[in-house]
Amino acid sequence: MRWVRYERAGAVRFGFVHGDEVHEVAGEPWSAPSEMDTRVSLADLKLLPPLIPPTFYAAGVNYRKHLMSAAAKRGEPYVPPVQSHIGYRAVNALIGDGTPIVIPRDSSGRVQFEGELVAVIGRGGRHIREADALSHVFGYTIGNDVSEREWQKADRTFWRAKNADTFKPMGPWIETEVRLSPMTTTIRLNGKVVSEFDTNDMIFGVAKTIAEITRYITLVPGDMIWMGTDDPTLDMVAGDTVEVEISGIGVLRNPVKGES
Amino acid sequence: MRWVRYERAGAVRFGFVHGDEVHEVAGEPWSAPSEMDTRVSLADLKLLPPLIPPTFYAAGVNYRKHLMSAAAKRGEPYVPPVQSHIGYRAVNALIGDGTPIVIPRDSSGRVQFEGELVAVIGRGGRHIREADALSHVFGYTIGNDVSEREWQKADRTFWRAKNADTFKPMGPWIETEVRLSPMTTTIRLNGKVVSEFDTNDMIFGVAKTIAEITRYITLVPGDMIWMGTDDPTLDMVAGDTVEVEISGIGVLRNPVKGES
Repeated sequence: MRWVRYERAGAVRFGFVHGDEVHEVAGEPWSAPSEMDTRVSLADLKLLPPLIPPTFYAAGVNYRKHLMSAAAKRGEPYVPPVQSHIGYRAVNALIGDGTPIVIPRDSSGRVQFEGELVAVIGRGGRHIREADALSHVFGYTIGNDVSEREWQKADRTFWRAKNADTFKPMGPWIETEVRLSPMTTTIRLNGKVVSEFDTNDMIFGVAKTIAEITRYITLVPGDMIWMGTDDPTLDMVAGDTVEVEISGIGVLRNPVKGES
Repeated sequence: MRWVRYERAGAVRFGFVHGDEVHEVAGEPWSAPSEMDTRVSLADLKLLPPLIPPTFYAAGVNYRKHLMSAAAKRGEPYVPPVQSHIGYRAVNALIGDGTPIVIPRDSSGRVQFEGELVAVIGRGGRHIREADALSHVFGYTIGNDVSEREWQKADRTFWRAKNADTFKPMGPWIETEVRLSPMTTTIRLNGKVVSEFDTNDMIFGVAKTIAEITRYITLVPGDMIWMGTDDPTLDMVAGDTVEVEISGIGVLRNPVKGES
């Protein structure tokens, strides 16, 4: 089932996709919502980010190739991480499918894409066992962890580098019927494939990450975890269009423009 | 005016304090709420964190003494920061006045307090000028940025170190009538003063921090910014009670216990 979020008649709504139509619901997708009579055409909707989480978790440095290349750039040997690196992002930065990524006025211009699998928590908990963890996932969506590389060097916390307004495209929807393997992430810049990798070739996978987080932290329904990216990540400039496709989920497509 | 948040009859409510009573409202304090007929006794309420923000901002390394002591511990010279260091915290960790701070089972035991001024945004915006910034603040509350020092060394993102469940006591209320100077933060452990500092002797003050954040990020009503702490910060153990008092706001008091 595919769940979308959008604005209609001045309010934010959830609905599920059925053919070309969206069936509107009352309530949140992960909280047993009730179906309403309203049907809207999917093509007519401007999609919003498919959820706004209470807390926005992001697993960092979670693919070998990405880490090896970062170590090589620093002239250091590759050392595999011994624990998950969980970070936070800010909800101000979230935009939906089709909404422009805006490069801030004083950016160096080194603004890059990072295509990521996003796990949406349906059932919360603390001390969730790795073997049970996937049953706590409601579904999956796609994120683009847009990053300003010069700010990333200067920001101890990546606050501007990864959280400037519009830097977190997400969507187009939450897909609840997903097989994690095989699964491929494909990134296209202006229609040309520029990166392709095995989505779940992670150092710490979805189940392991949920188990790790909940050793210390209670996850709640509607929380989400972005799972990191693999190399290469490349610069985008105003006028570009970037697409992140994850097989079995869909395509997240956003144009890029400069701050006016 | 003092705004509290609490649970009554199965729902979360806001109200303002009038003598010993709380006058309940419909709506959020910063969005022109309407007063209801319900009055409850303040002493009978179990207070919740006075708000749950869309995004939880935290300014780091924002006091000279705290920075100089950290540099000295690393055996490095003190270098003043050239920009604000904005971090994020997670809402799972928030607890209200009186709720116990729980030291996780596998903690090293080096769990310390950090008393902080918290600015609550009432009116959002982007590109807010420093001269206008304080007019965007709805009010102020008190935070205790509880930190596990061994995890802080190991966590690239401080995720466990600063965001384990119960590590972010906040309250007791939001005070809207506040003078930033003079203002003193006093921290007591088991009734004894262990730290006292000029609250607004910050490297980057509230107004400057709002201006810096909104160069890149849209703040929205109900966002909040924790402003950092000064030294000393000290270990707390199960059985302790920690109080953070900020003059003109109130006292945030929490007992400390071990994970059962």
